[in-house]
Amino acid sequence: MQKSQQMPGLLLEDESLRDGLQIESQLLSTEQKIELFNMLCRAGVSRIQVGSFVNPKVVPQMADTDELIRRLGQQSGTVISALILNGKGLDRALACGVGHVSMSVSISDSHSRKNAGRSAAEALAAMVELIVAAKARGLSVRAGLQSAFGCVYQGEISEDAVLAAAEQMAEAGATEINLADSTGMATPATIRSLVRRVAALLPEVRLSLHLHDTRGLGLANMYCGYEEGVRTFDVCAGGLGGCPFIRGAAGNIPTEDAVNLFESMGIATGISLDRLLEAVTFLETVLHRQLPGKMKRVMDHRQACTG
Amino acid sequence: MQKSQQMPGLLLEDESLRDGLQIESQLLSTEQKIELFNMLCRAGVSRIQVGSFVNPKVVPQMADTDELIRRLGQQSGTVISALILNGKGLDRALACGVGHVSMSVSISDSHSRKNAGRSAAEALAAMVELIVAAKARGLSVRAGLQSAFGCVYQGEISEDAVLAAAEQMAEAGATEINLADSTGMATPATIRSLVRRVAALLPEVRLSLHLHDTRGLGLANMYCGYEEGVRTFDVCAGGLGGCPFIRGAAGNIPTEDAVNLFESMGIATGISLDRLLEAVTFLETVLHRQLPGKMKRVMDHRQACTG
Repeated sequence: MQKSQQMPGLLLEDESLRDGLQIESQLLSTEQKIELFNMLCRAGVSRIQVGSFVNPKVVPQMADTDELIRRLGQQSGTVISALILNGKGLDRALACGVGHVSMSVSISDSHSRKNAGRSAAEALAAMVELIVAAKARGLSVRAGLQSAFGCVYQGEISEDAVLAAAEQMAEAGATEINLADSTGMATPATIRSLVRRVAALLPEVRLSLHLHDTRGLGLANMYCGYEEGVRTFDVCAGGLGGCPFIRGAAGNIPTEDAVNLFESMGIATGISLDRLLEAVTFLETVLHRQLPGKMKRVMDHRQACTG
Repeated sequence: MQKSQQMPGLLLEDESLRDGLQIESQLLSTEQKIELFNMLCRAGVSRIQVGSFVNPKVVPQMADTDELIRRLGQQSGTVISALILNGKGLDRALACGVGHVSMSVSISDSHSRKNAGRSAAEALAAMVELIVAAKARGLSVRAGLQSAFGCVYQGEISEDAVLAAAEQMAEAGATEINLADSTGMATPATIRSLVRRVAALLPEVRLSLHLHDTRGLGLANMYCGYEEGVRTFDVCAGGLGGCPFIRGAAGNIPTEDAVNLFESMGIATGISLDRLLEAVTFLETVLHRQLPGKMKRVMDHRQACTG
């Protein structure tokens, strides 16, 4: 805890409870989710996305989000975040007392039509309205753009389109813009280029990156984003997750590997690697498989040799 | 082949036949090794480390290196490299007509004593003599330093020590200095720092990096090395390999993921990803398991969805 009080600008938002668990066939109980949340808190994670207010018939893994958030109650030192996609989600978020919501649309028209059943322009217009509504109810809003660095359906995505959408989202009241590399198509070069342009256009807005390790470039992209000034990154304990709607989209950045990336260079994350690995162990035990994160294997090996 | 004739400064040396196969319990036949070599050549790999001249009782996987090199004969457009550790290895290399040899010692005293049974200073002195002897016989020599970015036994490694050793190796006649991150302890920051200092000290020498993905930083380190001017990297098809002597050392950089890193940013590698994946498929078939490289999974998935 002492460490997290020296907290720097760097913020790693753990999304294992939402982006991680939403595609697992095995459903975790609310008790198990609370246990995982508490482990992440104890490790020093300062923002945790715990679930989404979506149709429980479509995403049963997230059906208990309302109950989970009520039971977590107010947390000191940890921001609870939840994903909402529409007005109904906003109502549910307000009803259980969330103070911070995340929203997301795809900037790719093909992806948006496949995933959300409407054009990217329609989805963006609806999100802008939702941002305004959430702000009016006193919520802090982060708004995201999926496929911001390329789309498996559509190929290249125009930076100008991303900039125009980000500007609309910021004008509507989003205080954080999240650029998502939903299918792991970003490269160090495209990260640098787009981050520079968005930061120049919207200097007052917090810019965050949601990266996937599909092609092994997750940490390279994260580091290049950091070099360009990004200080907020989405991560998932164990490297859980992916996207159920996009073929080839696999693995979020493992929280523990991101912690190692930064801490090994003397950049404080506020997160204890040892405590975080307890959460990874918990997930691997509950899900009955090894997760892709590397630091768990490194530390297991070290213990086996010295223990 | 056309692509490789436009070859840029970038050189990816595939070491799957040596650093990859040397720790596999399953021994490949010489015929299988030739088949893999030919696949790598057809993909456009322009330097291939095919084996090592070491004690066949200690490393039976490499016992057929002499025969393999004789059977490969002269290759146009592909440099054949082999690892030698002593005068006996040099004699064997000369006897089968290798023109390019690789040598390597550890800069870490603890690692050197465990791995090579002598101090780092003794090992370096012996390598300097070996470089002189190989140069006198007309060979092209690359000399490497293991654990250049840190050691699991010893911890931090002094940059000054690396610089002093590199200078001795270059003065003895090595035209390429290879810095090896044997246990994946390098970070983007230490890569930048050490590469800058070695390049400033030895501007005439080709500097190459041998990276491991133990902590998931392999491609991030490779890209930062590239940004600092390094144009030669060791890779292994499929991400095969590791180090049998160092606990926690796992996985070389998959050749196919390195090709994707560079080609996706418009940096020519001279290597065809599709053809390279034939070599990965071959290795996965022969070794009866999935290898850690990501691009094989991405392309398999794409084929499954469009095929």
